[in-house]
Amino acid sequence: MALSEFELIRTYFQRAGLMADPARHPGVVLGIGDDCALLSVAETHHVALSLDLLVSGVHFPPDADAALLAQRALAVNLSDLAAMGATPLGFTLGLALPSFDAHWLEQFSTGLSQSAQHYQCPLLGGDTTRGPLTIAIQVQGAVPRGLALRRDAARVGDNVYVSGSLGRAGLALSVLDGTLTQASEAQRRELLAAYYQPQPQLVLGQALLGIARAAQDVSDGLLADAGHIAGQSQVRMQLDVAAIPVAPVLKSLCSEQQALELALTAGDDYELVFTAAADQHLAVMAAAARNNVSATQIGTVVAGSGVVVLDASGATMQFAKAGYSHF
Amino acid sequence: MALSEFELIRTYFQRAGLMADPARHPGVVLGIGDDCALLSVAETHHVALSLDLLVSGVHFPPDADAALLAQRALAVNLSDLAAMGATPLGFTLGLALPSFDAHWLEQFSTGLSQSAQHYQCPLLGGDTTRGPLTIAIQVQGAVPRGLALRRDAARVGDNVYVSGSLGRAGLALSVLDGTLTQASEAQRRELLAAYYQPQPQLVLGQALLGIARAAQDVSDGLLADAGHIAGQSQVRMQLDVAAIPVAPVLKSLCSEQQALELALTAGDDYELVFTAAADQHLAVMAAAARNNVSATQIGTVVAGSGVVVLDASGATMQFAKAGYSHF
Repeated sequence: MALSEFELIRTYFQRAGLMADPARHPGVVLGIGDDCALLSVAETHHVALSLDLLVSGVHFPPDADAALLAQRALAVNLSDLAAMGATPLGFTLGLALPSFDAHWLEQFSTGLSQSAQHYQCPLLGGDTTRGPLTIAIQVQGAVPRGLALRRDAARVGDNVYVSGSLGRAGLALSVLDGTLTQASEAQRRELLAAYYQPQPQLVLGQALLGIARAAQDVSDGLLADAGHIAGQSQVRMQLDVAAIPVAPVLKSLCSEQQALELALTAGDDYELVFTAAADQHLAVMAAAARNNVSATQIGTVVAGSGVVVLDASGATMQFAKAGYSHF
Repeated sequence: MALSEFELIRTYFQRAGLMADPARHPGVVLGIGDDCALLSVAETHHVALSLDLLVSGVHFPPDADAALLAQRALAVNLSDLAAMGATPLGFTLGLALPSFDAHWLEQFSTGLSQSAQHYQCPLLGGDTTRGPLTIAIQVQGAVPRGLALRRDAARVGDNVYVSGSLGRAGLALSVLDGTLTQASEAQRRELLAAYYQPQPQLVLGQALLGIARAAQDVSDGLLADAGHIAGQSQVRMQLDVAAIPVAPVLKSLCSEQQALELALTAGDDYELVFTAAADQHLAVMAAAARNNVSATQIGTVVAGSGVVVLDASGATMQFAKAGYSHF
């Protein structure tokens, strides 16, 4: 590919809606086009950063719709900001492409532009190169000093909550691999939207600042992600199986056991699992309701380690799969 | 690869020297292990960010020494901070690996750790995954508000300077592909060190704050990179061929013309090309000398566009290759 084509790629990303606009993004001092981007962050805030790498054939099929792929890649990273309670400032993009594909680039940058506008998270800069299709995205955000929702902040006696409902993105994989044949067109659309267009819980994360203690987004599966909080906070999470908010669409497409397993162990839902002191229960409910998000208390934090799910009789349940493995 | 191996990979990167140490890195509030890393930046400074993607077989040979590769990857990104005059705060790493290779990971993380300590730039977090060998690194730095060395800041009448000498990394490619056979062992070592272990001019960049106007690191070749300043500043750069600091080692290994072409058009030297008002000439020289770096005036900024190299008679010289093409 000639230098002119490399320059051309840049033009796909230097478009209105994707680049920072001084009026809408006052924190962006300098965006695309210099050695570095420059951000302005108030002394009252910390900068929050999260980098993800998405590889074709590992995280998405090679023929995935480029616009949906772009939106998913950005949403997944914004979910990490949501889990800290941070507000997006902008993102950087590293893109390796096997060849110059004008149609793919047009779709990808259009999808990215829509999400960048929706989440007020403009493109700050990055790198494009030849190589196996790989997408590196880093999001930058700002969070009030001392209030970030950290994994190590859960305390014995806290309640455990999860936002929204779980399992749809996990079941979408069965749509994608063709093994789920009994779903209606509307059900397929709902499942695929959950997978390709997850909604990072940014507004909820921000609303929980000063109310919740620890938080984490559900990317690897509820049990695995709750386990990260338990591990880093050195506590045990005791979850009540009857309280797990299984996505309603799963109930008509799976056995009760399958639906529960998906809700507990499938990744990619990008809801928030979080803890709050018991006396903050009404504040949690109000913060969620004010932002049109559901929050469900699913258990409590006790002394010990790990995550257990208890059945109606109080016995510990066993699950085959603990969560998504990255390798 | 099982989850335990994924966890194991993390242990390679959670080692002393690579992770942030509160005593040495007070700007790092939260490092590896949460949804986001958190940085604290003074209100007097802006945050500078730069992301690079390095792909096996494109940017480095698949069998490249993992320790040198790690050091080069970090140095190349730090060079972008240097070009803005920023001080490193820390970096994030996205690493795709085809398989779990304990030896490679040990070498890579050891090399990275050495550079992280040398440049006071700890690992803040990131992502590891299966995939074709790809390294995404983003550096974060801080630069005093309003003083960053931007590409768009050159003015007619400025002097143009370059640090150090040029062409060694370009000639190293001929060592790597086996076409340069007449070099001595010491010369081979010098050339390969220039390629694998470039020294980002961080101290010089910081010393030039308030003295220089525009700056850029020489990654694509002097003519191409000076061209970025010229383009964004809407000026013309007029360089004097006799002033170009060709690396001495090139003179015994190449014809004069080859050496000049490498110095002007080969990339990867990671020196700084910068401009400063003519009345800052002594300040530039003093800033460089104080930090044991050479700085050479190579031309002036005039009205117009583009970059031209003039010979002794004042005639414009032509070069076959304008700089590194990314595709």
